Amino acid sequence: MRHTISILVENKFGVLTRVAGLFSGRGYNIDTLNVAPTHDDGTSRMTIVTRGNDATVEQIIKQLKKLIDVIEVQDFREGEFVDRELVLVKVGVDSESRAEVMQITDIFRAKIVDVQPKSLTVEITGNESKVEKFLHLMATFGIAELTRTGKVAMARK
Amino acid sequence: MRHTISILVENKFGVLTRVAGLFSGRGYNIDTLNVAPTHDDGTSRMTIVTRGNDATVEQIIKQLKKLIDVIEVQDFREGEFVDRELVLVKVGVDSESRAEVMQITDIFRAKIVDVQPKSLTVEITGNESKVEKFLHLMATFGIAELTRTGKVAMARK
Repeated sequence: MRHTISILVENKFGVLTRVAGLFSGRGYNIDTLNVAPTHDDGTSRMTIVTRGNDATVEQIIKQLKKLIDVIEVQDFREGEFVDRELVLVKVGVDSESRAEVMQITDIFRAKIVDVQPKSLTVEITGNESKVEKFLHLMATFGIAELTRTGKVAMARK
Repeated sequence: MRHTISILVENKFGVLTRVAGLFSGRGYNIDTLNVAPTHDDGTSRMTIVTRGNDATVEQIIKQLKKLIDVIEVQDFREGEFVDRELVLVKVGVDSESRAEVMQITDIFRAKIVDVQPKSLTVEITGNESKVEKFLHLMATFGIAELTRTGKVAMARK
């Protein structure tokens, strides 16, 4: 089962190491993680996507809540939420395939952010299924480089 | 000085903890960090934004390169690169301010991803200055919640 966990933390030293250590200490792989400041000075929000059976993830969440500098933990497994991810992907093109890549980019409402003689760099944002579908199509042209932010999520309420 | 460091790693256990520990062990704060798989199964890319004097950051980069499971380290301090970030922001609105928030969202080519009676959730992507300008405007309406992915970056080449 896939879990998207959102953790509000104090901007304190080493909190990332402690949170990441809690997962790796239990042999739990993190699929994606991101952390950045919120609008409230002094706090940051981490979003972690992990896979595992519900009982173990619940254990981890209990432990997270006990960690120093952790303010709030939300498990987006069941609740309704909006999730988004941003991906930069560099695709190899020639004069022929460039037009095709541009068309697909357009259909997905993605954006071309850099053009080089032999490549296009495209920015796409969306939920997981949209992003995966786009990357699947780009793979047929040849992906030279790819960097993704991992998911962020927010409750619909 | 602001540094954007991109690190290609093997998808191995605990590599995130080791990388984060290298920064916190030296008393270095990470502004933002994200990690997610690349198109190449078995590898992930981390992007870290940190602030500090160049000599210390160079030291950290040298140490990063020596870490087990680290394949490649790029320091985007000087080179030309594209950088993007995605932010979800929930803004408090009433029937009057809703139209204003929608107008500003439109101007910034941001997207409304959720509507509630008393709030709008907006997705914005861009480089740092665009995102900051937008958030500055949203702050006048009242930000209820904010989550950001941190920067990802890719060389223009």
